[in-house]
Amino acid sequence: MAEVLHFPAEDAAKLEQYLPPCSSTSPSEPATAQPADQQRPFVTLTFATSLDSSLALAPGVRTALSGPQSKAMTHYLRSRHDAILVGVGTAVADDPGLNCRIATDDNTPGADVNVPSAVSAHQPRPIVIDPHDRWPLKHDSRVLATQRRGLGLAPFVVTAVREPDATKRQLLESHGGKYIILNASGDAPGSSGGARFRWEDVLARVASNGLRSIMIEGGGSIINTLLAPENSSLLDSVIITIAPTWLGRGGVVVSPNRVYDTNNQATAAARLTDVKWQQLGDDVVLCGRLHS
Amino acid sequence: MAEVLHFPAEDAAKLEQYLPPCSSTSPSEPATAQPADQQRPFVTLTFATSLDSSLALAPGVRTALSGPQSKAMTHYLRSRHDAILVGVGTAVADDPGLNCRIATDDNTPGADVNVPSAVSAHQPRPIVIDPHDRWPLKHDSRVLATQRRGLGLAPFVVTAVREPDATKRQLLESHGGKYIILNASGDAPGSSGGARFRWEDVLARVASNGLRSIMIEGGGSIINTLLAPENSSLLDSVIITIAPTWLGRGGVVVSPNRVYDTNNQATAAARLTDVKWQQLGDDVVLCGRLHS
Repeated sequence: MAEVLHFPAEDAAKLEQYLPPCSSTSPSEPATAQPADQQRPFVTLTFATSLDSSLALAPGVRTALSGPQSKAMTHYLRSRHDAILVGVGTAVADDPGLNCRIATDDNTPGADVNVPSAVSAHQPRPIVIDPHDRWPLKHDSRVLATQRRGLGLAPFVVTAVREPDATKRQLLESHGGKYIILNASGDAPGSSGGARFRWEDVLARVASNGLRSIMIEGGGSIINTLLAPENSSLLDSVIITIAPTWLGRGGVVVSPNRVYDTNNQATAAARLTDVKWQQLGDDVVLCGRLHS
Repeated sequence: MAEVLHFPAEDAAKLEQYLPPCSSTSPSEPATAQPADQQRPFVTLTFATSLDSSLALAPGVRTALSGPQSKAMTHYLRSRHDAILVGVGTAVADDPGLNCRIATDDNTPGADVNVPSAVSAHQPRPIVIDPHDRWPLKHDSRVLATQRRGLGLAPFVVTAVREPDATKRQLLESHGGKYIILNASGDAPGSSGGARFRWEDVLARVASNGLRSIMIEGGGSIINTLLAPENSSLLDSVIITIAPTWLGRGGVVVSPNRVYDTNNQATAAARLTDVKWQQLGDDVVLCGRLHS
């Protein structure tokens, strides 16, 4: 039985100005926000941290941080995007379902939330960034099992490997997923995996696959590169959940690389504008836009 | 001319449940919170960070983080405590005034905020933690200049040095301040300065000096030790301001040491309860209580 999540309409309304147009699910609704560039999708960066800006206690350790309301919000956000994106590290660590478990009829009084059919019919396309094709995708990986149950879509795996693993390719394609082969910019300094994609290239391929909006969820290295000044213009919205917890030193930290001004003085790496903070359970949700 | 700050009564009301009783300034008002132990003062831990939990871009670099409303809140909080405490690192880096610049008659319509007499008559006692007596206090240090202008009190300097510098001692005492000589617990691992005080000892001396409430403001090492499980029971309230900025890697980070559970698994180091988040300008103010 699929767990079905509910997100109150009044909370959803407060997020509306930071979300892409409803066109993918409800073509008739007016647009609430537009990407700056039609060559790329509307991009929302979203993640949850502790007060000390950690996503998790350690790489590969699933860490419960935010409360049930925040979890429901994440799935509501997924319902509003054509695609969701994670790095291969997150895919390996979490074996995530990468689907949307919000109830379609969330605001319909009397809806039976205990039947699977109440799960949103709109499912986002999972995009996994995997330059070296190292994701050990198997028949029983959760994202594929979820697709077979009709509760989600199979992933598009973005890789720099010219000839990805044939077994995985067949597995992906039999579930409706595929590989997207993309040129990487070579070995980037500080990139643990070696090859790194240009975000413009990734987003152009997302758009060319007909996906008009994407929610980028993590992990740490993906978030940190997007917060760098050279990428911040690619983001349309940033939605962050913060839990009132300190994970302590040694976690997987969101903090972009140091930025220096024209006088070679360290300066703030990024700042949000058009800021709205809203308490959700014990957590806070911060919405804003990024300008470098 | 002293800068006089204003903090709206409606914002102040939202903080009330996290503040010590008003007794020091208004003995007739009812108590709103009580310390668990009358041998120590009511302790509020307060500081401002970036989204990546940095207090500053680097040690010794004053970093504008929070907005004007948050600054006014800090001074309002100072008006509600008998003492404010900083570490010697902060005292050296910032040369702080360590006074309260909130207007006494903040809520009196028509009050002339441009005259110095509008500054709060209640001033908190500055407490500077300086185990090795290294603070280069001089006649023109801002905290002493502020005292001479009648806008603040001279500090009590807590040191482990048996015979502190005679010139500084005379300077302190001529302004109404003094040294408090306290046994340190010896060389603590990870303590850059070597000697480290037990917080129970510091707070007992604060109480024995007739100071019934204290606001601990920083810097990083002081905050991180107080967030450790062995000290969290000493804190009555935690009030944190977060600015919607990432300072980037390499800042002065608030993040306590890693904590392990009984199975030797890493676990969250600290969590706030009784949580309230409130937007203040572009920042958020998080109030809560700490339980280890």
